[in-house]
Amino acid sequence: MIIILKSKVSKKDEKAVLNEIKRLGYRPHVMHGVARTVIGAIGDETRHPTLEALRAWPQVESVMPVQKRHKLTSREANPENSTVKVRDVVIGGPELIVMAGPCSVESESQLMTTAHAIAKSGARILRGGAFKPRTSPYEFQGLGEKGLKLLAKARRETGLPVITELLSEDHVELVAEYADILQIGARNAQNFQLIIAAAKTGLPILLKRGLSMKIEEWLLAGEYVLAHGNRQVMFCERGIRTFETYTRNTIDLAAVPILKKETHLPVVVDPSQGGGRADLVAAICLGAVAMGADALLIEVHPNPREAWSDGAQQLTPAGFADLMAGLRPVAGAVGRTLRKPDAG
Amino acid sequence: MIIILKSKVSKKDEKAVLNEIKRLGYRPHVMHGVARTVIGAIGDETRHPTLEALRAWPQVESVMPVQKRHKLTSREANPENSTVKVRDVVIGGPELIVMAGPCSVESESQLMTTAHAIAKSGARILRGGAFKPRTSPYEFQGLGEKGLKLLAKARRETGLPVITELLSEDHVELVAEYADILQIGARNAQNFQLIIAAAKTGLPILLKRGLSMKIEEWLLAGEYVLAHGNRQVMFCERGIRTFETYTRNTIDLAAVPILKKETHLPVVVDPSQGGGRADLVAAICLGAVAMGADALLIEVHPNPREAWSDGAQQLTPAGFADLMAGLRPVAGAVGRTLRKPDAG
Amino acid sequence: MIIILKSKVSKKDEKAVLNEIKRLGYRPHVMHGVARTVIGAIGDETRHPTLEALRAWPQVESVMPVQKRHKLTSREANPENSTVKVRDVVIGGPELIVMAGPCSVESESQLMTTAHAIAKSGARILRGGAFKPRTSPYEFQGLGEKGLKLLAKARRETGLPVITELLSEDHVELVAEYADILQIGARNAQNFQLIIAAAKTGLPILLKRGLSMKIEEWLLAGEYVLAHGNRQVMFCERGIRTFETYTRNTIDLAAVPILKKETHLPVVVDPSQGGGRADLVAAICLGAVAMGADALLIEVHPNPREAWSDGAQQLTPAGFADLMAGLRPVAGAVGRTLRKPDAG
Amino acid sequence: MIIILKSKVSKKDEKAVLNEIKRLGYRPHVMHGVARTVIGAIGDETRHPTLEALRAWPQVESVMPVQKRHKLTSREANPENSTVKVRDVVIGGPELIVMAGPCSVESESQLMTTAHAIAKSGARILRGGAFKPRTSPYEFQGLGEKGLKLLAKARRETGLPVITELLSEDHVELVAEYADILQIGARNAQNFQLIIAAAKTGLPILLKRGLSMKIEEWLLAGEYVLAHGNRQVMFCERGIRTFETYTRNTIDLAAVPILKKETHLPVVVDPSQGGGRADLVAAICLGAVAMGADALLIEVHPNPREAWSDGAQQLTPAGFADLMAGLRPVAGAVGRTLRKPDAG
Repeated sequence: MIIILKSKVSKKDEKAVLNEIKRLGYRPHVMHGVARTVIGAIGDETRHPTLEALRAWPQVESVMPVQKRHKLTSREANPENSTVKVRDVVIGGPELIVMAGPCSVESESQLMTTAHAIAKSGARILRGGAFKPRTSPYEFQGLGEKGLKLLAKARRETGLPVITELLSEDHVELVAEYADILQIGARNAQNFQLIIAAAKTGLPILLKRGLSMKIEEWLLAGEYVLAHGNRQVMFCERGIRTFETYTRNTIDLAAVPILKKETHLPVVVDPSQGGGRADLVAAICLGAVAMGADALLIEVHPNPREAWSDGAQQLTPAGFADLMAGLRPVAGAVGRTLRKPDAG
Repeated sequence: MIIILKSKVSKKDEKAVLNEIKRLGYRPHVMHGVARTVIGAIGDETRHPTLEALRAWPQVESVMPVQKRHKLTSREANPENSTVKVRDVVIGGPELIVMAGPCSVESESQLMTTAHAIAKSGARILRGGAFKPRTSPYEFQGLGEKGLKLLAKARRETGLPVITELLSEDHVELVAEYADILQIGARNAQNFQLIIAAAKTGLPILLKRGLSMKIEEWLLAGEYVLAHGNRQVMFCERGIRTFETYTRNTIDLAAVPILKKETHLPVVVDPSQGGGRADLVAAICLGAVAMGADALLIEVHPNPREAWSDGAQQLTPAGFADLMAGLRPVAGAVGRTLRKPDAG
Repeated sequence: MIIILKSKVSKKDEKAVLNEIKRLGYRPHVMHGVARTVIGAIGDETRHPTLEALRAWPQVESVMPVQKRHKLTSREANPENSTVKVRDVVIGGPELIVMAGPCSVESESQLMTTAHAIAKSGARILRGGAFKPRTSPYEFQGLGEKGLKLLAKARRETGLPVITELLSEDHVELVAEYADILQIGARNAQNFQLIIAAAKTGLPILLKRGLSMKIEEWLLAGEYVLAHGNRQVMFCERGIRTFETYTRNTIDLAAVPILKKETHLPVVVDPSQGGGRADLVAAICLGAVAMGADALLIEVHPNPREAWSDGAQQLTPAGFADLMAGLRPVAGAVGRTLRKPDAG
Repeated sequence: MIIILKSKVSKKDEKAVLNEIKRLGYRPHVMHGVARTVIGAIGDETRHPTLEALRAWPQVESVMPVQKRHKLTSREANPENSTVKVRDVVIGGPELIVMAGPCSVESESQLMTTAHAIAKSGARILRGGAFKPRTSPYEFQGLGEKGLKLLAKARRETGLPVITELLSEDHVELVAEYADILQIGARNAQNFQLIIAAAKTGLPILLKRGLSMKIEEWLLAGEYVLAHGNRQVMFCERGIRTFETYTRNTIDLAAVPILKKETHLPVVVDPSQGGGRADLVAAICLGAVAMGADALLIEVHPNPREAWSDGAQQLTPAGFADLMAGLRPVAGAVGRTLRKPDAG
């Protein structure tokens, strides 16, 4: 920690700060500058109490951390890339993985049509919401267990592993029974109790970025998973909230290279939530792949015009096939492979 | 709903939109303007499926709701102010209610000292965190049940009702056994499963605003509580996340008069989280009261310099007494009463 | 400056940083911590080149300034409050000053009606836009010199000094001929050439906060005025841009006590631009005054329903009179006086 | 315009709104819905006064525009792509154009070294700041005319056209004498007087996005240029201001496909300002090109460690050569050509 004192602090007040630093187990190191006195507090910040309370001292101007707060998720701790393995699919390796499917599971025919279509186009994982977090209590909240059963059936028929959102601690056992990957949604991105419960299932976890989450906070949410013994974590950029209203959210694609630098874990991009508009999905996917994303999470619906949720951002199966065709050369240009259509 | 078509849409494409509107149970009403065609879809938006999926249609430029989405929380539905009653305390009436106490419950002496001090200065409700949501898994997570027991003891000694945060569905029964008011924190502001579970206890709920929550979304989170049969809801402004880094958050005090206009439920302001700095707490309280807040939620610690969490934003008991003295004339100027010191 | 090195930096790379620090005229001071090496660069940051380019060095993690960048505007440099004097009006003293008038000057009758009405209610300064910055080139751009002449006439008739916006370097002489205070608008908040040109007139300057301006940047924009020899500066909070769409901007009222702490110069609040809604103006004024604002800048129009710009946020003269009546007790509660109605 | 009335509005109040709509030259069209009455005002919004002042009427809930406000810049008005021609360089055609050079012109050797190096690597246009807008008055403000002369010399030596920033109306003639493209910086993005003055030179204009500028506002700033008779406009995304602090700004790459949809004019991306970090420049360029950018604007300095401004975000000539090599396959994958190294 670095502690900066206010200007014109008395010797006595400076001494008090030094004593407090020592009391908490750090070794203080004083620098008297031209305009300010700066104190370095030397010691392991993870083993001693935080010095942040010094901010409340009247003689203190500011307190700044020196050490990074994320440890197990950090690239420093683990210089090599980690991969997440789901059945026969490896996320974080040379293959670009596409996860696709409807926003919400609505019916057997809707889901099966979608699952077969995306598998044919080269998707490797099926997404679909059975429990839906909705802004209003009057909106469709998902089919629940019935939706999970349909996802399991689609997996049997297509061989695609399944990712679905977990939004309640009370559903952990139920959802874990059906899902191959647990998705933690943006609204629960700092619901640490849910994250811990998900971590304990041992299943891979996809952590969506919260709408107003700094990258450091996101890494710390991932740290909760690793600190609870589960190393199968992916970070999924899906847009942050800004003043711009043309798009539903502002997708922060620079987060992709940043995460690749800061963490060893795979990085996913969700272009559907990110832009909130079907007509932007293809361009965002191209950008994400060019910038190093390991996987994409794309909403596809057999008839988006009649979708029960988020119709405006879902692709048709034909649109998805076009997208995959357009992705292939860009993936190749950055050294990634992409499953061929009908290869399943 | 209002549907705006793109320019130069064919008769056939316009017809298709009209048919879809009818199919979903609305009556379409067409206006051919100079540059655009606009269609009104007449019908009760709460009884029919949403028309938002029309956004995905290529001939549609935009879809705009006409009706407000919050119903039970709305001032239209309930023109008179609602009050929340907690033991002998009424929030939302002529008395300005001050809730105060430490960020985290740390020990018996810390809590009792604070509780007696704030009661003496005129606070009516004791706050204190027993379960703490923390950005990093390596930070202090609260005393848990031991903290709840200390809060109950402080209530017995001082007569002050207790507000404490609920952050897990698994804790609902436990926390409800000790608390008089359940606080839903900013990070869980759209954790709807937790909100529903809290609502079902029948206890009053204080809903903090999420860091990137629009006022409409906040009202809809409150709508979840009322829709589950609990009308004892308060909205607590505690700052939103913006680009400004001088303060921890940007407190949106205009939310106070907006909420008083849009909802009949009481409005609370948390100046401690809002600014994140003890030296701004008094000014924010003065502003909040002048603008119509019904209650304040203030962090007080016997020794903020040694607090286990958020030391920089907690007041000392002496600072709190000064604050209460400064509040009195402003409360009076806007027609509110404030309990006198030592009146308890 | 504080320079934090990356972990595991070689002695040679550390040495190179130390040499660079010396080369630029600072004295380096090394602290070897547990996880990182931290270097303090001791020397006057205003007299030596910045060390920020060190951020580009591969062995450097981050570079943090220790000294505040604003000097002449800072409270440290000038512990006493400064006041701005405009004819017989003193801003920043015990009297709360209200500036009011139409968004745009539209006609003689519109301006004279407003000027007399606000003077009667206790306003001390007349505002009115003659040159208007408009988002679209197809919107009303102001009456120009004709508007300035009307403002001068209103001043002669009412005795109220005039504040009006300067938005072009080419208008400086013209506007300075008529205005008592030059307003720099939010869109020009970092148009430094305009600010310098305004400063050189010697007239008092009211600096509106830019829509995405940090408080530090705002103070530095003020620093441009003082560095060019003009000490007559006021800072005017008028809302920042956030994700919230209920209001046009999010008014950051905490900026009022922050500015009072950081600078000796007067602080003004514009509730009309801040909220963008006439029905919020009164509440924002009450909050601003309770929190320490020295002056208010309020839009008033004889018939807001027919205003040529920003009709939705302008008060009627009757609404303004009510607002002044409501302000009086709150101003009194915080020790400020407010001119009585008809006292002019 | 669409006008939505509040619930329970009397016939008389509704009538008053209808009369006002007629008075302003529009034809009102009433729809009585279940919860609200909606009125369409039919007429050309560019030829009649705005109806926005109706927002101030007590019986009006909201007023929504139907027509887009940008006309000359819109894709609707001009379905084909427009190109900008600068000497032999065409921006907006099949060739991906790279503009590169130092943040600030510092000296002859610095500029010539950079200009020759970037030309060799395939850049087509030389950038360099002669007048610099700086947050603090104490920072380096640019070499001024001396810098312009050096840019002209570099153009003679390398054949590269020159882009440089215009930041004062007083400099228009001077800068126009030397520059091939005038850059309007982010801080002046709504300095309409400067934009108009730039437009009148007839030179191509590159409009950087303001830090808190919505896309619609940006298009309207471009509209100012076209409305003043200059069609040579490019839009340059350079990041918006958000809560994220890891990067200097949040680059909004989705703006690229949005602009390609909304306007016929070329789209440029500045990865240096966008991320504020040299280590992110390459990834942002790859994403921008994959998403459809017509040109890139990249900061290159022979020795970024010693740059007088923004050292942390400038590439070395070697880094720039690597970037160009990496760009080539991605440009090819999306059907763009890129000048070969040493082809000049």
